[in-house]
Amino acid sequence: MYVRGVAKTKFGILNESVPELAYEAMTKAVHDAGLPIEDIQVIYVANFAGGPLQNQLQLNSVIASLLPGINIPIIRVETACASAGAATFQALHMLKSFNNIMVVGVEKMTNLNIYDTTKGISSAGDLILDQKEGLSFPASYALVAQQHMLQYGTSEEDLALISLKDHQNANMNPLAHFYEKQVTMEMIKHSPVVCSPLKLFDCSPVSDGAAALILSRKRDSDRDIEVVGSALATDTISFCQRKNLTSFQAAKVAAREAYSQAGITGKQVDFAEVHDCFTIAEIVAMEDLGFCEQGQGKKMIRDGETRLGGRLPIGTDGGLKANGHPIGATGASQIYEIVTQLRGEAGKRQVKDARYGLSHNIGGVGGTCAVHILKR
Amino acid sequence: MYVRGVAKTKFGILNESVPELAYEAMTKAVHDAGLPIEDIQVIYVANFAGGPLQNQLQLNSVIASLLPGINIPIIRVETACASAGAATFQALHMLKSFNNIMVVGVEKMTNLNIYDTTKGISSAGDLILDQKEGLSFPASYALVAQQHMLQYGTSEEDLALISLKDHQNANMNPLAHFYEKQVTMEMIKHSPVVCSPLKLFDCSPVSDGAAALILSRKRDSDRDIEVVGSALATDTISFCQRKNLTSFQAAKVAAREAYSQAGITGKQVDFAEVHDCFTIAEIVAMEDLGFCEQGQGKKMIRDGETRLGGRLPIGTDGGLKANGHPIGATGASQIYEIVTQLRGEAGKRQVKDARYGLSHNIGGVGGTCAVHILKR
Repeated sequence: MYVRGVAKTKFGILNESVPELAYEAMTKAVHDAGLPIEDIQVIYVANFAGGPLQNQLQLNSVIASLLPGINIPIIRVETACASAGAATFQALHMLKSFNNIMVVGVEKMTNLNIYDTTKGISSAGDLILDQKEGLSFPASYALVAQQHMLQYGTSEEDLALISLKDHQNANMNPLAHFYEKQVTMEMIKHSPVVCSPLKLFDCSPVSDGAAALILSRKRDSDRDIEVVGSALATDTISFCQRKNLTSFQAAKVAAREAYSQAGITGKQVDFAEVHDCFTIAEIVAMEDLGFCEQGQGKKMIRDGETRLGGRLPIGTDGGLKANGHPIGATGASQIYEIVTQLRGEAGKRQVKDARYGLSHNIGGVGGTCAVHILKR
Repeated sequence: MYVRGVAKTKFGILNESVPELAYEAMTKAVHDAGLPIEDIQVIYVANFAGGPLQNQLQLNSVIASLLPGINIPIIRVETACASAGAATFQALHMLKSFNNIMVVGVEKMTNLNIYDTTKGISSAGDLILDQKEGLSFPASYALVAQQHMLQYGTSEEDLALISLKDHQNANMNPLAHFYEKQVTMEMIKHSPVVCSPLKLFDCSPVSDGAAALILSRKRDSDRDIEVVGSALATDTISFCQRKNLTSFQAAKVAAREAYSQAGITGKQVDFAEVHDCFTIAEIVAMEDLGFCEQGQGKKMIRDGETRLGGRLPIGTDGGLKANGHPIGATGASQIYEIVTQLRGEAGKRQVKDARYGLSHNIGGVGGTCAVHILKR
């Protein structure tokens, strides 16, 4: 199974609507793949909050409206922030039945007031256990950070180093939400507290954007990148149903399965896109994915191992923190970055001599996790 | 590919929440299949309006919370009113990779005021082309009815006959929304106009409910029912993008594909569950599915061919009209009825000597259509 084409729109505060964003990513992806749209046999649409934020459901038919007369199966998948990862997992399995499948992830989030946006995002948490208690996602991840700091000595400085790295990487990515935004450690450390210990610069932004992938059963050219591992796992939705806040079981289960398919361990991953919706989530991801031992993420950060040029660069596109987080698009955008890197087409932010790239796409506080491993 | 277990909750105005409804259907379905839950390898959750109506997304993780420690892939599929049909299509393909898969369709719709419910349901129409013009679904299907009456001479009496048949069937289905509601032609004909020519009794109700299916790669017992055709097709979302209001291209394409897989034609179908969200939709379905020629649906109705005991009974459970229409559950509930009939377990409403049963599940005004053919 191969990724034959990839594309994304600019991420950020955009004027375009959901169908306009999807259309741009879809058009560029089929062009990148060198396939006519007629050769696409199935489309998956990944979108999180089209209901609460846009009052637009049946997005599969909205996408069909962009392709009149084609009438192919189009399905919307929603698993919160892991929607595009789950859609990709699904689409790869469907390559047993079809030759070429498109995944398009899209989200429009910036056209509402912040109250409605926050309420819509909160729908990824449990209605009673989380939402009615006011446990929004910054609050949830603040609990993760507090526990991680208590148990393992992770510091606010470690989180700030992740934010700084992400912004530096985004400055080499013209499609990133925060491209050409000059960010310093001073700015990060003195940014307003959102939910202690998380500050503004620990939080990914609210973004619009779309990304699309063309997946094919067979290799067509040297630019096609093989998918050697694909796994999806789930867990309880609310922290009050969990024993451990500093590790996500769904990520561990998905990683174990994906590594088993790929025949590698976490130590052999050359670079990764992890779901850093908050900086602390990057450390949890590094540990859940076996890039280091539990509690040792801070050491990798302090040693600069996850920076470009380090042992295992993470978030080369800027991560969710600085590339942006248009929720339904994020999982596809991560794979866009990995494919771009493995093709050697990442320009200034190119990782050298990489063989294995991994994407880690989380829904909520680990209720869902999709892990993909791609190989050059 | 086989349906090994089926279950549904009572449909109607219920006290239970989304997870409670899903849990009841899931528990009964694994019991019906005689499988421990641990043997289910993947779950699809079909749900339409959990975002706008309940502010509960990431339903896959809500379902995972009912099964702690299992961590299997669970994916939510949403394609408006065809969500469970699309999930079933998807799940059947996934049987190439897994042995046993569950589909659970669930919807909670009756706990809101009618304004918010109507707005939420409208999200299955195009945001700009339909919603902003006030083209709600009763209005859309009223346009279909007007055109069908003009072009083919279909009458209000024909629509009333469909409603009467559906209510008569529902009176033999204890799980139907309108079980034991005595309905007469007089009541139907004198019910208030919703959108001319559609009256109250032409419209399916707003219902809560859930239904679940266990799909298996191999046959285990005589109660397992084979799926011989499964197809999904899409079309433009809005009528203003269509040339024809009296036929749905997505239904024709899906039917053609499903018949081709099954090796039969529409004339060989013994009974069917069609998507009669409005009575006129049943006539459109009969014609799109090739049960009769275009424009001749009225004749089948007038001749009583679609009643229990007729040539091709339709909506033996009461149809969406009288069984109820908890949107995300509907497609699974249709297959529940077909399996129950083909097993010979339908009690008073049993169709005799049936071999082929067909389900037809529509999203919006034909933006999506899933067709399944099951065989005894």
